[in-house]
Amino acid sequence: MEDRPGRVQRQSLSDELAQRVRRLIQQRDLQPGDRLPSILRLARDFGVAPPTVREALRKLEMLGVVDIRHGLGVFVGSDSDPLLVRNPFEGAPGARMLLDLVDARISIEPTCVALAAENATPAQLAALGALLDRAEEALPAAEAALNEANLGFHREIARASGNLVLHQLLDALGTAMRQEQRIVNHTRPLRERFHAEHLAILRALEQRDPAQAVERMRTHLEGVRQALLTAGSPDINPT
Amino acid sequence: MEDRPGRVQRQSLSDELAQRVRRLIQQRDLQPGDRLPSILRLARDFGVAPPTVREALRKLEMLGVVDIRHGLGVFVGSDSDPLLVRNPFEGAPGARMLLDLVDARISIEPTCVALAAENATPAQLAALGALLDRAEEALPAAEAALNEANLGFHREIARASGNLVLHQLLDALGTAMRQEQRIVNHTRPLRERFHAEHLAILRALEQRDPAQAVERMRTHLEGVRQALLTAGSPDINPT
Repeated sequence: MEDRPGRVQRQSLSDELAQRVRRLIQQRDLQPGDRLPSILRLARDFGVAPPTVREALRKLEMLGVVDIRHGLGVFVGSDSDPLLVRNPFEGAPGARMLLDLVDARISIEPTCVALAAENATPAQLAALGALLDRAEEALPAAEAALNEANLGFHREIARASGNLVLHQLLDALGTAMRQEQRIVNHTRPLRERFHAEHLAILRALEQRDPAQAVERMRTHLEGVRQALLTAGSPDINPT
Repeated sequence: MEDRPGRVQRQSLSDELAQRVRRLIQQRDLQPGDRLPSILRLARDFGVAPPTVREALRKLEMLGVVDIRHGLGVFVGSDSDPLLVRNPFEGAPGARMLLDLVDARISIEPTCVALAAENATPAQLAALGALLDRAEEALPAAEAALNEANLGFHREIARASGNLVLHQLLDALGTAMRQEQRIVNHTRPLRERFHAEHLAILRALEQRDPAQAVERMRTHLEGVRQALLTAGSPDINPT
């Protein structure tokens, strides 16, 4: 992606309006879940037609900035000002992208876990424990539930790091990570091994031991990488 | 950002169409700059009205997947299937976000530069050199040109790593990094120091020395962090 300064000139009215709604959220310090003024009210305040407001809100919804609940109203989304967002039209990542993803994770997640060992609140540690309990229940068969719990475990560690950018990065990579999980978690021995590794990472966090946590995270992700390679290209690239 | 499975159900016709256009690009293996069928043709092929096609294309344009050139047609964008994208409605990042950003960069960019020391092609090394030439010309006064060249230097190192995900991450963080540059590059001594550090990083890449490149990148980013802290909150948070 190159910068295309030309795009700003072509910025449509709804883009401009989307920016203004974003700024309104910021200026009024609205929090996730807070209700925005109605579409008619926004249209009146900004001096535009209601369809333009709707178009702007749809764009913001796509980015997670607002949440349109039909018949209920428009609410501030769970992340009102992210630096980056996952591509909502992303395809199934291919083999090479998945290997690049795990290499990128090996570069990012040890930092997340080191920071989390220092910064995680007791509530965040409890939430991580609850996710692993859920994963344990799902181990025998419920693959989708297992993958969601495991994905949540990694994402919540990034959140517990206290670094907003690292958390957003992990979050934006979520869809691709889900694909990775499907591939590496389809045999029982691997699921059990990765689950045991997750438990060991959580213990290091609970003991506030960054060095141990980093080493365990790194070993874990190297194992995921190996599992991806072993799964081979037919499985790895299902599209 | 939580997952909102409800969003899929509410997926509009134009979202569905955007997905189909993305898949069409993938299936026909269209490359950046290739022309897509006309809006009328797409409308006929997909059995929808032209305004729906236009809406879908606008969404894809926002994500960099297509490039709409008025009067010329619709072309494949420079990155047709990114895992993540920068938020087009992002605000100016505040002080905390900028510090988190530089910490995230310290976690990501040493990996980028280590891989680039091994994988950069001669053409990529030459392009990095050309960016630093441009930066040098801009050093005395032309701040915007300097910042663009410097930003390009970091982004092209991520590209030269050969890891698609790391490149996308750096690319998606571009707007926030631009803000960071404006803050740390406003005194001449700092500009000259960072430029000298960039030159030293490039020399390590040219010598194919990953350890040296990593050490220099880390020192450089620690210096950027320090400069951000020194700039202090009034400058750091201009909105």
